[in-house]
Amino acid sequence: MEVLRNPKREDWTGLTQRPLFDLTQLFSVVQPILENVKQRGDVALFEYEEKFDKAQLTTLEVTPAEVEEAVALVEPALKEALQVAHRNIASFHEAQRPQSLVVETCPGVRCEQHTVAIEKVGLYVPGGTAPLLSTVLMLGIPAQIAGCRTVVLCTPPNAEGKINPAILYAASLCGIDKIYKVGGAQAIAAMAYGTETVPAVHKIFGPGNQYVMAAKQLVALSQVAIDMPAGPSEVEVFCDATCVPQFVAADLLSQAEHGVDSQVILVCTNESTLTEILEALEEQLVNLPRKEIAEKALQNSKAILFDTVEQGVEFTNSYGPEHLILSVEGYRDLAPLMPHAGSIFLGNYSSESAGDYASGTNHTLPTKGWVRSYSSLSLSSFMRSYTVQELTPEGVVAIGTAVETMADAEQLFAHKHAMTLRLQSLSK
Amino acid sequence: MEVLRNPKREDWTGLTQRPLFDLTQLFSVVQPILENVKQRGDVALFEYEEKFDKAQLTTLEVTPAEVEEAVALVEPALKEALQVAHRNIASFHEAQRPQSLVVETCPGVRCEQHTVAIEKVGLYVPGGTAPLLSTVLMLGIPAQIAGCRTVVLCTPPNAEGKINPAILYAASLCGIDKIYKVGGAQAIAAMAYGTETVPAVHKIFGPGNQYVMAAKQLVALSQVAIDMPAGPSEVEVFCDATCVPQFVAADLLSQAEHGVDSQVILVCTNESTLTEILEALEEQLVNLPRKEIAEKALQNSKAILFDTVEQGVEFTNSYGPEHLILSVEGYRDLAPLMPHAGSIFLGNYSSESAGDYASGTNHTLPTKGWVRSYSSLSLSSFMRSYTVQELTPEGVVAIGTAVETMADAEQLFAHKHAMTLRLQSLSK
Repeated sequence: MEVLRNPKREDWTGLTQRPLFDLTQLFSVVQPILENVKQRGDVALFEYEEKFDKAQLTTLEVTPAEVEEAVALVEPALKEALQVAHRNIASFHEAQRPQSLVVETCPGVRCEQHTVAIEKVGLYVPGGTAPLLSTVLMLGIPAQIAGCRTVVLCTPPNAEGKINPAILYAASLCGIDKIYKVGGAQAIAAMAYGTETVPAVHKIFGPGNQYVMAAKQLVALSQVAIDMPAGPSEVEVFCDATCVPQFVAADLLSQAEHGVDSQVILVCTNESTLTEILEALEEQLVNLPRKEIAEKALQNSKAILFDTVEQGVEFTNSYGPEHLILSVEGYRDLAPLMPHAGSIFLGNYSSESAGDYASGTNHTLPTKGWVRSYSSLSLSSFMRSYTVQELTPEGVVAIGTAVETMADAEQLFAHKHAMTLRLQSLSK
Repeated sequence: MEVLRNPKREDWTGLTQRPLFDLTQLFSVVQPILENVKQRGDVALFEYEEKFDKAQLTTLEVTPAEVEEAVALVEPALKEALQVAHRNIASFHEAQRPQSLVVETCPGVRCEQHTVAIEKVGLYVPGGTAPLLSTVLMLGIPAQIAGCRTVVLCTPPNAEGKINPAILYAASLCGIDKIYKVGGAQAIAAMAYGTETVPAVHKIFGPGNQYVMAAKQLVALSQVAIDMPAGPSEVEVFCDATCVPQFVAADLLSQAEHGVDSQVILVCTNESTLTEILEALEEQLVNLPRKEIAEKALQNSKAILFDTVEQGVEFTNSYGPEHLILSVEGYRDLAPLMPHAGSIFLGNYSSESAGDYASGTNHTLPTKGWVRSYSSLSLSSFMRSYTVQELTPEGVVAIGTAVETMADAEQLFAHKHAMTLRLQSLSK
């Protein structure tokens, strides 16, 4: 890690810069895939699965027998872990259930706000070397609690045409029974447009590589909603002499092992603590199976020493990290000063991995500075709100003139007339 | 209006189809404008304002003196109307203020959800023949209640370089003091990238023509969030013999006068009522100043007669209108069966114009079927939520093994190690 001491304010933008993607190039790769799936449906999916995942499939949908077989294969310890995680995630998301709202804004004018589940949602779970079973829970549980009527899950199969048993077990815990062996941009296309086998949905969720991300952004222009734009995962650890250097080093490595483009930033207000953390980092790195990935990620990472906590707070707000770990004295008072984060981890015992898997919070969080405008994934991401209003004759009298006057000023005379007729009917 | 009797289920998709826009063509027009403003800032804005709005400006920002002058020019009746609307809109949106959430998901694991205002928001208010003062209130009031620190308003000037006084008065009611004379795609670019004069924001709100919409979608790919995709305004009136035909006709015309591409659908379960509505429509159309626009919109509109209320409900759900007026017996019981609408107006006295201006609900609503995945604009559109968590040693013991096991299954060993170290520190 590059170590910087009290970097000047004008250098902060450079320090917090995220990798840039060439969206135009990504779109040009992805657009033909979307178009092909839209036009040719399942046939295109079979072709892409053979090309990209080396899987010669005869069917796309996972059968109940396959799920049953998978459930039997998952080790009891992993089943138990997934159940613990499921219970905590469900408990936190269940508490987010919104209330209907009824307000009489003035006599006879009743305004309401109600929330309902989005009917059909699609969950994308990436493949690759490791099965992202936690992602299944993080997307599947709020979909289930929201009451989405159709929950579709797409995930790429391996070369044998199989899906990791733990993925299927996690899906079954969330009551998901529409699971398809499709990955990449073609999976996003399938859920956006629908094919003979894969149902079209109204909103698509889930992480993925640059191509999946680009596909989500393209279908969001005209077809379906998406959860949020995405980029490489990020962590900032903000610490002082009260932290445990070994814990901090482990948290930094948790982020670094995700990928070579992972963003890792250490902010520290104590020089000897910083040195201890860097030493612990070297020690722990040696034994890490994903050592090469983590090393590359750390080469682009910064350790920043600030003289004051205030500077650290200001820097953190200027960065806006996905994950923010506060192992610093007075973290309870400091946390509200740094709301520009996807999820904040307080004290020495809240490892990022706690929230990644099992504490109950959602691990689907905005990256790349999108924390300034996007919410972290929550129950409300799977719901939509709408309004209802009812005016009585008294209500018409209360606001009728205001409506007429404003409609008049906007030169929308039919709008005015609709109110005039009602006012007239009451003055007869 | 074309009258249809009990159209077959397979014809519904055709009946509810929205006009298609050629996004690729729109993007190719808008992209160079965005690029130019991004590169050349204010200079580009001055050039575009001269080209598109015929305004030779020397400054872009509206001065306090201009606002003061404008406030003096607005008629007292309009001021009073705007104050009534402001009070009701504020009252309904104030009631939407979210609560923080604290859940102990298991002993020693505390998960929280907090909500804060988006720091910098941009509001776009279209120009044209009529000043959209209601839009200023609908966007400015929730921004103010949310507590957004910077609220930027862009609206095109007229050829004299002036902004309608009522717009400036409405803005001052919402405490907006950063107002810029910029319209169209160039305004969206200015708020997305920032210029010497116009501050960059984190989220852009507001209606506009196809070019504004395309510009919003393009900047949303990489730069800022936007409120929602948009299309021409829509209304469905669902009525039976209990409605007042003159009111229904007036409501249909309110929508039709918006533009030639406005979507107007009438669903009725009573043949003679339908005939009365169509007669009233003809009568009212004669005296409408925007008659030509309304007539063209009505040519593309449908009046549909269904034998049963059930068919009407099913059809309404298949359409998913922006505005849904229920002038039908038992509307209170029926409304929850048709949640796929942006805003629902109940009974004979709730004209769409009531909600457009002054009842308190927001008039910024999803169109084009986006009601299936997007919420109607609300206070939460101007806020973002994030999570916080704190584990005690007891919490680490409670979920530590689950975290280790899941991280192991995902082959993320640094994630596992971060928890193992904490567990080990407690067993010493």
